[in-house]
Amino acid sequence: MGRDARQSSWSAARAGSRRHMTMLVNGAASADPARALALDDRGFQYGDGLFETMLLADGRVRALDAHLRRLEAGCARLAIAAPAREVLLADIAGVTGSARSGVIKIIVSRGVGPRGYRPTDGLAPTRVIALHPPPAPARSSTIAIRWCSTRLGRNALLAGIKHLNRLEQVLAQAEWRDEQVEEGLMLDTEGELVCATAGNVFIVRDGTLVTPDLRFSGVRGVMREQVLDAAKRLGIPVSEEPLWPHDVEIASEVFITNAIRGIRPVAVLDSLNWHATPVAAELRKVIEQ
Amino acid sequence: MGRDARQSSWSAARAGSRRHMTMLVNGAASADPARALALDDRGFQYGDGLFETMLLADGRVRALDAHLRRLEAGCARLAIAAPAREVLLADIAGVTGSARSGVIKIIVSRGVGPRGYRPTDGLAPTRVIALHPPPAPARSSTIAIRWCSTRLGRNALLAGIKHLNRLEQVLAQAEWRDEQVEEGLMLDTEGELVCATAGNVFIVRDGTLVTPDLRFSGVRGVMREQVLDAAKRLGIPVSEEPLWPHDVEIASEVFITNAIRGIRPVAVLDSLNWHATPVAAELRKVIEQ
Repeated sequence: MGRDARQSSWSAARAGSRRHMTMLVNGAASADPARALALDDRGFQYGDGLFETMLLADGRVRALDAHLRRLEAGCARLAIAAPAREVLLADIAGVTGSARSGVIKIIVSRGVGPRGYRPTDGLAPTRVIALHPPPAPARSSTIAIRWCSTRLGRNALLAGIKHLNRLEQVLAQAEWRDEQVEEGLMLDTEGELVCATAGNVFIVRDGTLVTPDLRFSGVRGVMREQVLDAAKRLGIPVSEEPLWPHDVEIASEVFITNAIRGIRPVAVLDSLNWHATPVAAELRKVIEQ
Repeated sequence: MGRDARQSSWSAARAGSRRHMTMLVNGAASADPARALALDDRGFQYGDGLFETMLLADGRVRALDAHLRRLEAGCARLAIAAPAREVLLADIAGVTGSARSGVIKIIVSRGVGPRGYRPTDGLAPTRVIALHPPPAPARSSTIAIRWCSTRLGRNALLAGIKHLNRLEQVLAQAEWRDEQVEEGLMLDTEGELVCATAGNVFIVRDGTLVTPDLRFSGVRGVMREQVLDAAKRLGIPVSEEPLWPHDVEIASEVFITNAIRGIRPVAVLDSLNWHATPVAAELRKVIEQ
């Protein structure tokens, strides 16, 4: 099959709504996003890089500083030369333009290098910054979720950061198609609760807000940190600790957090139901205004 | 920094030796390999794909069928639509041309899709096929290796296949710079021996050839399978089982296998030394002719 037989979703989206689909590679607009990346970029060859997904709402990038700090922390962990903050801010301003809403995705890879796992010294990281359309409006104030059978491997070295090795999340999301089910909870290979496929998970237990400690896997979400901070300000006791499926099943509340969709209280998890989510509601008032 | 400030290693290599650096994306030659891949290719976004690295020697691709079978098995595991074998063979013939030697690397990603982990139905996989220069000649008949401190996470779902989530191998190879040390042995997070950073490991124990069973991590190497088959033909007892660092330390032989570099007997591992490697030598005679 030739190149022309396939469709870039960039091209498709741009055709539909050019204003909401702009991107920069290393600061420069690409004539053709379907042919913009070097084949020997280590992001493609090995998943050797990091990403951030940020909400642009009312003309403001939410939690921008926290996102950039996590990106920098990820670069430090992987020994990737982090792009200067002013460079990233210029990129973000470049793709945003006059847009008031959308989703900004940043990918930073280690850059272009010769074949082989070993990183060459002095590589210039690749920056890809894109503005995507805003998320679809939430269908309801609560969500239904499920358990995923795909497990997360444990590796403290990669835990917490938002790196590009995401096959586990891909396989987990491929498990279901029911659009009424918004998220799936993931366990690690030892059966410990870690996160949702694209978000963090919180439970309320005896009035304490509890979330997995992510010492072995999962991403330390920006919204997760905001929720923990807000809870402390509100005087709600918080705990980061190992959790297991049973902890979810006996929780008085369960909610999922994500930088794009905010705090999403869970009403349904397979055969379980929750009817009131006062702690989630209180946190939403503080965080989402 | 602008796009032009960086150098594609493709461009550099092509400038030096065009004959030995050809590539095809979905069957078509790219005018500029530094701008050939779609930014929304899921290989780049999530490491959502697989690869193979094959030796072209004396005009023949070694173990071609075994490589294509592993690629197909990986596609099946990840539910990626495997490219038809005749399509891959045409790609390989296309990049090889009249070259008699080199390294052929195939990447198959799930293809181009919209933002989000969930794979869209019916994606056409992306194929990138490249011919790289042949490996540098071995400096000696035996090698020195080391222990890596980077651990491999355990996840049976991803074990054995050659997927694109390779941050652990990248970080492991970044641990040392001594060119006299050719490989590093990797343990998993539980301390079990798995593999070398870019190869499999074998030991000889009481006359039996033993290699890790790879039930939780590592890649099921094509050369590993050839070695196991050859040993059986030679009447050497073989075992695939869990191994630990101690097993290496008391082994009468240790060797590393890799489809490109073949069988590499280990002479030095930190303070340990091996002076004779008769089993490795016997296997090399059969496999490398």
